[in-house]
Amino acid sequence: MGAVVEWKIGDYRQAEEPFYLPVGPEVQLFEAAAAGRLPVMLKGPTGCGKTRFLEYMAHRLRRPLVTVACHEDLTTADLVGRYLLKGDETVWVDGPLATAVKKGAICYLDEVVEARKDTIVVIHPLTDDRRMLPLEKKGEVLEAPDSFMLVVSYNPGYQTILKDLKQSTKQRFIALEFDFPPAGHETAIVQKETGIDAERAAKLVQVAGRMRALKNRGLEEGVSTRLLIYAAVLINRGVDMQEAIITAMIKPVTDDQVIQKSLTEIATTLLAED
Amino acid sequence: MGAVVEWKIGDYRQAEEPFYLPVGPEVQLFEAAAAGRLPVMLKGPTGCGKTRFLEYMAHRLRRPLVTVACHEDLTTADLVGRYLLKGDETVWVDGPLATAVKKGAICYLDEVVEARKDTIVVIHPLTDDRRMLPLEKKGEVLEAPDSFMLVVSYNPGYQTILKDLKQSTKQRFIALEFDFPPAGHETAIVQKETGIDAERAAKLVQVAGRMRALKNRGLEEGVSTRLLIYAAVLINRGVDMQEAIITAMIKPVTDDQVIQKSLTEIATTLLAED
Amino acid sequence: MGAVVEWKIGDYRQAEEPFYLPVGPEVQLFEAAAAGRLPVMLKGPTGCGKTRFLEYMAHRLRRPLVTVACHEDLTTADLVGRYLLKGDETVWVDGPLATAVKKGAICYLDEVVEARKDTIVVIHPLTDDRRMLPLEKKGEVLEAPDSFMLVVSYNPGYQTILKDLKQSTKQRFIALEFDFPPAGHETAIVQKETGIDAERAAKLVQVAGRMRALKNRGLEEGVSTRLLIYAAVLINRGVDMQEAIITAMIKPVTDDQVIQKSLTEIATTLLAED
Amino acid sequence: MGAVVEWKIGDYRQAEEPFYLPVGPEVQLFEAAAAGRLPVMLKGPTGCGKTRFLEYMAHRLRRPLVTVACHEDLTTADLVGRYLLKGDETVWVDGPLATAVKKGAICYLDEVVEARKDTIVVIHPLTDDRRMLPLEKKGEVLEAPDSFMLVVSYNPGYQTILKDLKQSTKQRFIALEFDFPPAGHETAIVQKETGIDAERAAKLVQVAGRMRALKNRGLEEGVSTRLLIYAAVLINRGVDMQEAIITAMIKPVTDDQVIQKSLTEIATTLLAED
Amino acid sequence: MGAVVEWKIGDYRQAEEPFYLPVGPEVQLFEAAAAGRLPVMLKGPTGCGKTRFLEYMAHRLRRPLVTVACHEDLTTADLVGRYLLKGDETVWVDGPLATAVKKGAICYLDEVVEARKDTIVVIHPLTDDRRMLPLEKKGEVLEAPDSFMLVVSYNPGYQTILKDLKQSTKQRFIALEFDFPPAGHETAIVQKETGIDAERAAKLVQVAGRMRALKNRGLEEGVSTRLLIYAAVLINRGVDMQEAIITAMIKPVTDDQVIQKSLTEIATTLLAED
Amino acid sequence: MGAVVEWKIGDYRQAEEPFYLPVGPEVQLFEAAAAGRLPVMLKGPTGCGKTRFLEYMAHRLRRPLVTVACHEDLTTADLVGRYLLKGDETVWVDGPLATAVKKGAICYLDEVVEARKDTIVVIHPLTDDRRMLPLEKKGEVLEAPDSFMLVVSYNPGYQTILKDLKQSTKQRFIALEFDFPPAGHETAIVQKETGIDAERAAKLVQVAGRMRALKNRGLEEGVSTRLLIYAAVLINRGVDMQEAIITAMIKPVTDDQVIQKSLTEIATTLLAED
Repeated sequence: MGAVVEWKIGDYRQAEEPFYLPVGPEVQLFEAAAAGRLPVMLKGPTGCGKTRFLEYMAHRLRRPLVTVACHEDLTTADLVGRYLLKGDETVWVDGPLATAVKKGAICYLDEVVEARKDTIVVIHPLTDDRRMLPLEKKGEVLEAPDSFMLVVSYNPGYQTILKDLKQSTKQRFIALEFDFPPAGHETAIVQKETGIDAERAAKLVQVAGRMRALKNRGLEEGVSTRLLIYAAVLINRGVDMQEAIITAMIKPVTDDQVIQKSLTEIATTLLAED
Repeated sequence: MGAVVEWKIGDYRQAEEPFYLPVGPEVQLFEAAAAGRLPVMLKGPTGCGKTRFLEYMAHRLRRPLVTVACHEDLTTADLVGRYLLKGDETVWVDGPLATAVKKGAICYLDEVVEARKDTIVVIHPLTDDRRMLPLEKKGEVLEAPDSFMLVVSYNPGYQTILKDLKQSTKQRFIALEFDFPPAGHETAIVQKETGIDAERAAKLVQVAGRMRALKNRGLEEGVSTRLLIYAAVLINRGVDMQEAIITAMIKPVTDDQVIQKSLTEIATTLLAED
Repeated sequence: MGAVVEWKIGDYRQAEEPFYLPVGPEVQLFEAAAAGRLPVMLKGPTGCGKTRFLEYMAHRLRRPLVTVACHEDLTTADLVGRYLLKGDETVWVDGPLATAVKKGAICYLDEVVEARKDTIVVIHPLTDDRRMLPLEKKGEVLEAPDSFMLVVSYNPGYQTILKDLKQSTKQRFIALEFDFPPAGHETAIVQKETGIDAERAAKLVQVAGRMRALKNRGLEEGVSTRLLIYAAVLINRGVDMQEAIITAMIKPVTDDQVIQKSLTEIATTLLAED
Repeated sequence: MGAVVEWKIGDYRQAEEPFYLPVGPEVQLFEAAAAGRLPVMLKGPTGCGKTRFLEYMAHRLRRPLVTVACHEDLTTADLVGRYLLKGDETVWVDGPLATAVKKGAICYLDEVVEARKDTIVVIHPLTDDRRMLPLEKKGEVLEAPDSFMLVVSYNPGYQTILKDLKQSTKQRFIALEFDFPPAGHETAIVQKETGIDAERAAKLVQVAGRMRALKNRGLEEGVSTRLLIYAAVLINRGVDMQEAIITAMIKPVTDDQVIQKSLTEIATTLLAED
Repeated sequence: MGAVVEWKIGDYRQAEEPFYLPVGPEVQLFEAAAAGRLPVMLKGPTGCGKTRFLEYMAHRLRRPLVTVACHEDLTTADLVGRYLLKGDETVWVDGPLATAVKKGAICYLDEVVEARKDTIVVIHPLTDDRRMLPLEKKGEVLEAPDSFMLVVSYNPGYQTILKDLKQSTKQRFIALEFDFPPAGHETAIVQKETGIDAERAAKLVQVAGRMRALKNRGLEEGVSTRLLIYAAVLINRGVDMQEAIITAMIKPVTDDQVIQKSLTEIATTLLAED
Repeated sequence: MGAVVEWKIGDYRQAEEPFYLPVGPEVQLFEAAAAGRLPVMLKGPTGCGKTRFLEYMAHRLRRPLVTVACHEDLTTADLVGRYLLKGDETVWVDGPLATAVKKGAICYLDEVVEARKDTIVVIHPLTDDRRMLPLEKKGEVLEAPDSFMLVVSYNPGYQTILKDLKQSTKQRFIALEFDFPPAGHETAIVQKETGIDAERAAKLVQVAGRMRALKNRGLEEGVSTRLLIYAAVLINRGVDMQEAIITAMIKPVTDDQVIQKSLTEIATTLLAED
């Protein structure tokens, strides 16, 4: 039975360091932003490691981490808090953003562009020199301590005219850009996460590389590192390597039978090489 | 009078094994995913046996099964739970997803693509290495036990630009693809479910095969195994075979009078052969 | 003053047999479906006798009948039930579908295609081998007794891209198709319902036949048997036959002055013949 | 200060007979429908006397009259009734339709086509041989006494694809068609309502006739009898006749300066004749 | 600190007479309408004096005035009233329209076309010979005393297909049309309101006249008298005349830099003369 | 842990004077408007200093400042106030606009055009000579003291047909127009805010100038002064100057890889000069 734990503060301070291999100056830039109290935007495709980077930084900076997956129906109240009936009076219950402000945590709004405009606007006073969170329904204002930090993620490939951040929101963040990790890094990640041997991990990365090259030429998005790890998990459980690639890396990514077949042929060819 | 039973946990652990005839490596792949704690997506057309497969696997893995039929108005609260007024205070009532997490069950979101985006996003933290379910309204987080497993179904033939899963959702699952069972399998299923004789079962399967070949050439979707079983049930109650095919296999599938007539002629011809 | 009666269970078991003249094998097919516990879909145009057929079958099968007129704003809660504040606590009140399941009644969803998708999806678990109704808000499941039967009606002439049943819903029903009754039958019905003489009843049916031939050639829908009965009612109250036809059969069906005039001329000509 | 009176039952039974001049057989037809318990639809343009006709009939038949102005946001609950918190428990409050059923009144849904589809569907069981009103939220059914009668009004000139009655609704009514009254009738009405002399009343009717001839040639709708009465009221208060026509009959009907000017010229010319 | 006063009854009866200079027969026509209990529609562009005229008439007629600014989300309940929880039972609170009916006041619906259709329909029974306001939620009807009067305003320049009054609403009002006041009148108004000297007031009016001539040739709407008053207020506080015109009369009206520049040149030229 | 402070009144009266360098006559014009009780609209692009100007004026005028970030879902109740359940009765809680009126503060509606029309209309009675705020839900009216002032901001570059202020709203304000500060001013601001040396501050301003010249030629909006300050903060923490410009000034503003590259080249060239 699943235990009931406290509000979703990811406390990476005492835990083991999350595994992350830096690619560029992102660690230094994030530390400078944290020290200078600047909000940060992480840009990049699905599953390229943005969330893991943030867990790593939270551990490194010894700050708690509050994560919110944004979506179209996330209301301001979901972020900030709301009144609930308890017994015979209304009680205020803090939302994740208010919790993060109070605890001086990093608040991470994942896929921020999915949120409704009003939900996004609520972060404005936290991202200028006021650094405060108005609890409008309560008639109060929370002042953010120095350790509070706002981080959002954003997939530039998904933006449309209807779904984009306003400039008046974008210009409240410094931006770090991510892409899929280099082959050596990704092989190490797959090994580390699943215990698979280096040779097969490298093969999975090689197949992924070929698939990613097809982005915008039949594939909407490149295959994420997570799916490589899924494939390795299946292989560890005795699934045939080609079957694992089809099941974990090809079929989740596309419904198109023709493209599925081409990708399977590419994988077969690569597996046949050595 | 219908009895009031506990929350819709399908407990296949003590029951008789659900009848399922494997077609490919789907049983092995599902077991590997279960052991490796990977989320699974079942892809395939209406009524081809996805749900039955899952009941079979739940029995085989000795895990309870919680099924949710997704639709446009399914809210996050419907899945996760909500506060209700009981007497003079608010009481929290778990939704099916929270129930499944607590009981370490398989949670099955049938036709997940029908759900609103926000309802889908709520499964994200359960499908990455956090494996947790935030109860945002309650300010709590449930941690999923190892036996908890998330399974979704998805009919690729139905997707449109408006209704499709985001890549950031799709890439959280391994995918098993299903199609209508081979003729021998389907004949056995119809016999097993209705007690009809092999010859007539085979005839129904033969008619279905012809109808399925017309998909995208006048028929929106192939006839499901369920309708073959309906036809057999009518035949068992004394309905003429052709009448049963028209009533159970042709008229439910299409409103087009011309196509109904062609299908009836095809059936008549096949029934005349022996 | 109208009496307040119990929840809208139409109890045709002790009442007089509703008047229905069978046209084809629909009675036998419906009985086979009832015996085999199959859900039934009644297809056909407005006012051709689908509802009356169902009342007749309910009486014949000695089962109570619960009727729900579907519309765009019918919610799942309207069908299944909801919590209401009574005194100082919330009380659950069953909706018509839950009532029908508990009483082992026939539940009739009239014009099911008008309902919202989520309302339709709620019937899925009742129409497969689970035969159960999840009361999601209550965390309970009702199991349907053998005598429970789900029947829906559906007017194929009304479907549009926006309003159609999904194949995954359609393929849960056997389908019986209805059309306006043959002239002899309809004359008998009009006589039986109003006590008008055979000659004038036949004349009204003759006018209706001419009007129905104009469907899709100026008339959106054929005139229903109900309107013939209305015309006969007016005639019985002393209204002139032509005036009755104009008032009860022509003006309700079309707003187009030119078509009204042609129809009036057709009626005048037919009335002049003898 | 306005007195607070009982629920909007228009009780014309003891009052003076409302002034109405029959044009065709509408009185006889309405009486036949009332005797035969048939629902009635009144068709015709804005302000041609449909509502007055109904008040007249209510008086003549000695039945109370309940009027509901339909609009896009009229809910089923607005018609049928709802639960309200009173003290410490919920109390049911009947809506106008339930009130009319209980009192055996005529219920008049004015401009029924403006209502939402779900609001319209709620009248279906009242307009077939069941003659009952399900109070779904209450789990009860009201049976309509013989004197209950449902009347709707409908302006065929306003219908669009989006806003039209479904045939399955239309074919539940007999239809009486209205147009602006003949000149003699209308002159008498204006005189009767305002006490103005016959000559000036006839002049206003003459101007109105010219304006109505311009319908669909610059004017969306003909000027209603009500506006003629307004003009006469102004004249009685000392306003110049031409000024009264401009203010009460021309400017309310069109915003177009050019058409206003033409209409003014027409009026001036007609006033100059004698 | 702002005082809390009673519900927004504008009581102009004891106050000083609002300053209004009649242009045509509008005062006489309004008085005739008031005496004859006719509803009135004020047509004309933004800021041409409609509201001031009404305040003047309210004072002249010695009737209280209730003003409601209409908008898309104004509900029927906002106008009519609603139940509120007070202590442990629900209490009815009258809205402005119900208040006006009870007090026999003039109720002014400003920019009525902005309101939702259902909000507009609620005035229908007040604008025919019933002169009553049904409080549907309360099951009561208020009868309007003779002194109650309904006035709406309407800007014909703003109407679109989506936002227009229905003929069945328009034809319930007599209509008075307004335009910007003649130069002499407007100069007097600006002087009266701000105490500025006649020469500079006339100059502002002259600039406004030029700007209004550009309506539909780059300017969406003419500059309102209110903005002339704003300019005079700035001038009185020591702001340079040209700066005041730019700040109060040009920049609020258009965002277009090119048009702003042309208007500034026009103003400069006019100021340079004599 | 963030302290809980009183409702978001920004009290600049006792605080240090906010840093603001006047560019034109905006301070004098704002003071004249404040003295003359005129509402003010601040027009200009994102991040050009409108908010800072207002903080400066609030301090200078010794008035409290209430700021509201407008968005699509801001309701009238969010501005004006609402009833909340407290214990066993409903309690009224003032919103920011009501608070500002009561305290005689400046109320600042930031990005007013984002608000829903109904939210904007609520300010109408505060912006004409009534200077009052109707609390419709409460049936009360607040009268604004002389020191109350309404200020809105508005970015002309963002307006679309769907999102624009109505003329009847615009013409209630005098308008002050802002642009990015001149180079010397902006250099001083960056220095003052971050302590960076003049040379590097000037370099950042020079880069920003080049970027702003590309507005509407690939860049949607010019880079704001805030982002220059972010870049300086990073530089102060040891980040390389070019890296800081890319991270804080280029990547937040555009997702386009080609434009990012051109901007980086421009920056590199400018940094190489000295």
